[in-house]
Amino acid sequence: TNSIYTGMPTTIFEVMSQLARESGSINLGQGFPDVDGPLDIRQKAADELISGYNQYPPMMGLPVLRQAVADANKRFYDLDIDPANEVVVTSGATEAISDCLTALIEEGDEVILIEPLYDCYLPLAKRAGATVKSIRIVPPKWQIDRAELEAVFSDRTKLIVLNDPHNPAGKVYSDEEKGWIAELLEKYDAYAVCDEVYEHITFDGLPHKPLMAFDGMRERCLRIGSAGKTFSLTGWKIGYITGSKELLDPVAKAHQFSTFTTAPNLQEAIALGLNKDNSYYEELSSDLQSKRDRLAAGLRDVGFEVIDSQGSYFLTTDVTDLCAKKGLPLDDAAFCQTITEQAGVTAVPVSAFYIEDENHAAAPKQFVRFCFCKKESVLDEAIQRLKNWA
Amino acid sequence: TNSIYTGMPTTIFEVMSQLARESGSINLGQGFPDVDGPLDIRQKAADELISGYNQYPPMMGLPVLRQAVADANKRFYDLDIDPANEVVVTSGATEAISDCLTALIEEGDEVILIEPLYDCYLPLAKRAGATVKSIRIVPPKWQIDRAELEAVFSDRTKLIVLNDPHNPAGKVYSDEEKGWIAELLEKYDAYAVCDEVYEHITFDGLPHKPLMAFDGMRERCLRIGSAGKTFSLTGWKIGYITGSKELLDPVAKAHQFSTFTTAPNLQEAIALGLNKDNSYYEELSSDLQSKRDRLAAGLRDVGFEVIDSQGSYFLTTDVTDLCAKKGLPLDDAAFCQTITEQAGVTAVPVSAFYIEDENHAAAPKQFVRFCFCKKESVLDEAIQRLKNWA
Ligand SMILES: CSCCC(=O)C(=O)O
Ligand SMILES: CSCCC(=O)C(=O)O
Repeated sequence: TNSIYTGMPTTIFEVMSQLARESGSINLGQGFPDVDGPLDIRQKAADELISGYNQYPPMMGLPVLRQAVADANKRFYDLDIDPANEVVVTSGATEAISDCLTALIEEGDEVILIEPLYDCYLPLAKRAGATVKSIRIVPPKWQIDRAELEAVFSDRTKLIVLNDPHNPAGKVYSDEEKGWIAELLEKYDAYAVCDEVYEHITFDGLPHKPLMAFDGMRERCLRIGSAGKTFSLTGWKIGYITGSKELLDPVAKAHQFSTFTTAPNLQEAIALGLNKDNSYYEELSSDLQSKRDRLAAGLRDVGFEVIDSQGSYFLTTDVTDLCAKKGLPLDDAAFCQTITEQAGVTAVPVSAFYIEDENHAAAPKQFVRFCFCKKESVLDEAIQRLKNWA
Repeated sequence: TNSIYTGMPTTIFEVMSQLARESGSINLGQGFPDVDGPLDIRQKAADELISGYNQYPPMMGLPVLRQAVADANKRFYDLDIDPANEVVVTSGATEAISDCLTALIEEGDEVILIEPLYDCYLPLAKRAGATVKSIRIVPPKWQIDRAELEAVFSDRTKLIVLNDPHNPAGKVYSDEEKGWIAELLEKYDAYAVCDEVYEHITFDGLPHKPLMAFDGMRERCLRIGSAGKTFSLTGWKIGYITGSKELLDPVAKAHQFSTFTTAPNLQEAIALGLNKDNSYYEELSSDLQSKRDRLAAGLRDVGFEVIDSQGSYFLTTDVTDLCAKKGLPLDDAAFCQTITEQAGVTAVPVSAFYIEDENHAAAPKQFVRFCFCKKESVLDEAIQRLKNWA
């Protein structure tokens, strides 16, 4: 059996969620909301099951959803996207990332990843045949080091994966950083796969500007969005990729043999969702901003050092002091196990977001990620439990 | 961009469906029913959207659906499947096939395919790094030649893809043929990826016996089923893979980074579907059997030579005589274009199910596939249109 997937562990998100379920712990690990998205969206999906169409939709996605994706790109980023040729609907953002990497990478190509990284990037890039190069961003600013970035590009660079807003760092890349990336992509004739699933979840008025909207980047970027994250329906697994017709064409072919298409009722409903007016999007981020603040304040109270989050629904914390105080070894994975068992609160160890092999420095062990897209009462109860334990 | 997916055409099913839509032709091409599956299944899926759970389900699939898959394996094939470790729910059978090939194949492994073949097998096997070997089955019996089969196995054989019942041949492999395959898999320590999406659609009382149910095959087979085909809901894209824990483990890991999971409301509803009593399954195949007979008789009347179909929802026809009579070149692709335009009936050219490269004999050009899972009035109208044209 294949050497990449044989013996591979289950994703940390699933592992921690299972642990939480088994122990009755409050799950602030895996990133999913505990209140489902808008009823009108769900009602539309339900209606379509009864009186709509339940057979294969077009491979690229329902026209109504592709149009809605194009419209949203115009509205939010002033990007002109041709719905007929520049949008592919996928069965979730994970499929979208897989399709992009499968379609772009040729055996021996170099792929640049930024650590910490979302866990699917590495196996997907390797399975597609890539040699992986990486750089690291470090807290509290999670700032790209320009020299390091330049040094990692080469004539063999095929693409960079840019997760913006960034999970788990909660970082929105600055215009300056994206400018550096754009320059290097042009210099090395390379592409970017832009995982922007948290595009509508940024805080303190900070706008999200996709790399694709930067000069010269329109033809070099594949931009991935997620209905699950945008409409609090993570189980639906609807994603979308936008990109130039030329770049998207092989991606659509990878998609055609990956899932082929996605349930039409869910697509219809997400089209309705995307067309919601700005107030929906504003409420989404302002609601999450207040939850971020609530959890951050609580965690600080408990003794966590909380790193600022500009976007996504995650807070990364430094547990160095807390471990010292509790006499625990500084080991994020052990820490997450401990608080699950002893406090009844589950989080995710950030070391799981690093590449583990002989070519990479050991992952830091002092960071723990908390998810805050939960009811306020749940956040409060989690804080109370942690306080009692700490 | 990747050499396998760059410049690849859109799947023939999508191309012909689009042509049918544009021209208002009756679409007997792509395989999907024109009446949606049971209302109770759809209603269950609708209810779950409103009052059920809409966030990430477990990566392997909802327990209730994995249990239903295991139960169906017991009921129909007397196979004992452990729902906790031997079932993975996927976003359709295409994803299932992709996961299996991605997880099993290592660069340079040999994969055996049987022509005609469903169109995703070849690119997926190649993209996974395989060297593809193939044999052909030919009408009217579509019988495997034992010597040919033996000759194509080697010490480098990793797996065979077995589509049973077979699309487009409508063939159910005989126990004798499956016995040969089983013997060779043991001899060469190889696996089978069994695409059995039409497992519940066989005719004339012919039972479907999965390769997995043959002696020694329990640990060598990954068996793929499709809710879309079994419940006439092809748009839902729910598939399931069963296999030994050991063999399924890397497949689950490929799945985890391919789509991760599938909408829980649809999973709940399909669990209800699988648990329907035998009469549902009997009606499915008897309804389709009478449609097969209706379309076969009509096509013979028009002048098509119709090859027997033992399963699936397809009839393959030989258009040699008809082309001669109409003064058309013997070219199945051109023929399908012609009847779409001139008769208003769309079918699929069987040459699209063959490997096109310098190592393979040219595809036969005299076969055209018709799909019969359509309302009787639609089948009758299609026949009438073809009669008027012929
Ligand atoms: C696919 S489960 C992971 C959900 C998520 O995005 C996260 O927790 O980071
Ligand atoms: C994924 S579209 C193809 C449907 C089908 O199974 C067929 O027409 O053969």
